[in-house]
Amino acid sequence: MRLYSAARSSAAFRVRIGLNLKGIAYDYAGVDLVAGEQRGERYRDVNPAELVPVLDIDGLRLVQSLAILEYLDETRPMPPLLPASAAGRSRVRAAALAIACDLHPLNNLRVLGYLRGELGIETPQRNAWYRHWCEQGLAQLEAQVRLGGAQGAFIEGDHPTLADICLVPQIFNARRFEARLGHVPLLMAIFERCMALPAFADAQWDRQPDFRA
Amino acid sequence: MRLYSAARSSAAFRVRIGLNLKGIAYDYAGVDLVAGEQRGERYRDVNPAELVPVLDIDGLRLVQSLAILEYLDETRPMPPLLPASAAGRSRVRAAALAIACDLHPLNNLRVLGYLRGELGIETPQRNAWYRHWCEQGLAQLEAQVRLGGAQGAFIEGDHPTLADICLVPQIFNARRFEARLGHVPLLMAIFERCMALPAFADAQWDRQPDFRA
Repeated sequence: MRLYSAARSSAAFRVRIGLNLKGIAYDYAGVDLVAGEQRGERYRDVNPAELVPVLDIDGLRLVQSLAILEYLDETRPMPPLLPASAAGRSRVRAAALAIACDLHPLNNLRVLGYLRGELGIETPQRNAWYRHWCEQGLAQLEAQVRLGGAQGAFIEGDHPTLADICLVPQIFNARRFEARLGHVPLLMAIFERCMALPAFADAQWDRQPDFRA
Repeated sequence: MRLYSAARSSAAFRVRIGLNLKGIAYDYAGVDLVAGEQRGERYRDVNPAELVPVLDIDGLRLVQSLAILEYLDETRPMPPLLPASAAGRSRVRAAALAIACDLHPLNNLRVLGYLRGELGIETPQRNAWYRHWCEQGLAQLEAQVRLGGAQGAFIEGDHPTLADICLVPQIFNARRFEARLGHVPLLMAIFERCMALPAFADAQWDRQPDFRA
C-alpha cells in the first residue's frame, strides 16, 4: 500500500484523511509539485495526468481522490464514509463535489501558474481570483448544507463523511490565501470538530514527511 | 420529476443522458444562464449555488450532476451506469472525475466571464485558455483510459457508463471552442459510438426546448 502524495495537495490530503479514518497504514511517497516532479518521466509512468494522489492498493493503481475514497468505502466498509440512505449519500456526494468540482479546481497550483505565466496576472489579482472562488464556493456550500437540513456535528449527521473530508483541506487552503471565512460559521464549526479527530489532524500539511514551511 | 437544465450546460447534459439511459421521463425546466436567470431570487430558491442541473425526484431536490447520477444508479439500477467490480467502478469514477473536476470547471461560463470581466482577458487569450485545459485534460484522460486497459466499445467495457456520460458533453464543448481533438482518437471513437445511441443523441444541445443557435 503506497500513497503518492504532496503535503499541501488538497486531493492527497483528502485521501490521507480517508485512509486514517479507515485505519489503513500506508507508505508515503512524496511528490515535489513545486519542483515539477509530477511532470517528470518517472512520475508520468505512475500517473500520466501528472496529478497526485495515486494509491497503490490491492494490486491496483487508483487515481482521483473521490474515486479512491469510494473504492476504500466499497472494499473496507467500516467506518463508512457515506451514509446508508440514497438521499443521504446524494447529499454527501453533492457537498463533496461542490468543493472538488466547483471550487478547488480553480485554485490549484497549475491554474495559478497559468494565470501568472501565460496570462501575466500579478500576485494581488491572482490572490483576488483565489479568494473570489473560495469565498463564493464556501458560501454556496454552506447554503446547500443548510438547505439539506441533515447536518449534525458534521456535514451529514454526527459522523464524518466524504463531505467533511473535502471540506477540511479546502479550509487549510482558504486560510493560506487569507480568504474570508466569517461568513460560513456552520462550516467552520464542523471544521473545528473534524480537526479534533486524530484521523484529520494527522493528515494535515505539517505532519507529512515532505512538508516544507 | 423535473430537471432544471440549460441546453448547453455540460453538467445538465450529463444528467439528461443518464435519465435517457434509465428510461426516466421528466419535465424540462430551462434556466437561461446567458441572461443570468440562475442568479435571480427565484432560481436561488431552487439552488443557492446558482448552478444547473437540479433534479426534483422522489420528493428530494438533488444537485451536482455526478451525485444525481449516482443516486439514479442506486435507486434505479438498470441499466447500470457503473460496472459491478470495485476496481471497474473506481476506473469509471476516475475517468468521470478527470472531466468533471480537472477539465470542465476551468472552462465553464462563470469562469470565462471572470477572465473577461475582472481580469480583462481578451477573446483570443480566453479561447487559448479554454483550449489549453481542454486539450491537455482530454490527452490525460486518453492516457488514463489506455493505462486502465479495460476499454471496449466504451470507456469501460462494452456498455456506456458514468465516464462516457461525462465525455460526450465535453466533446461538444471542445468542438464549439475549436479545440484540437486529433490527439485523442480512442476517446473520439467512443464519442461516435455514444452518439449513435438515442439516449445520448436525444440529450444533445439542439434537441432541448431552450436551445438557441
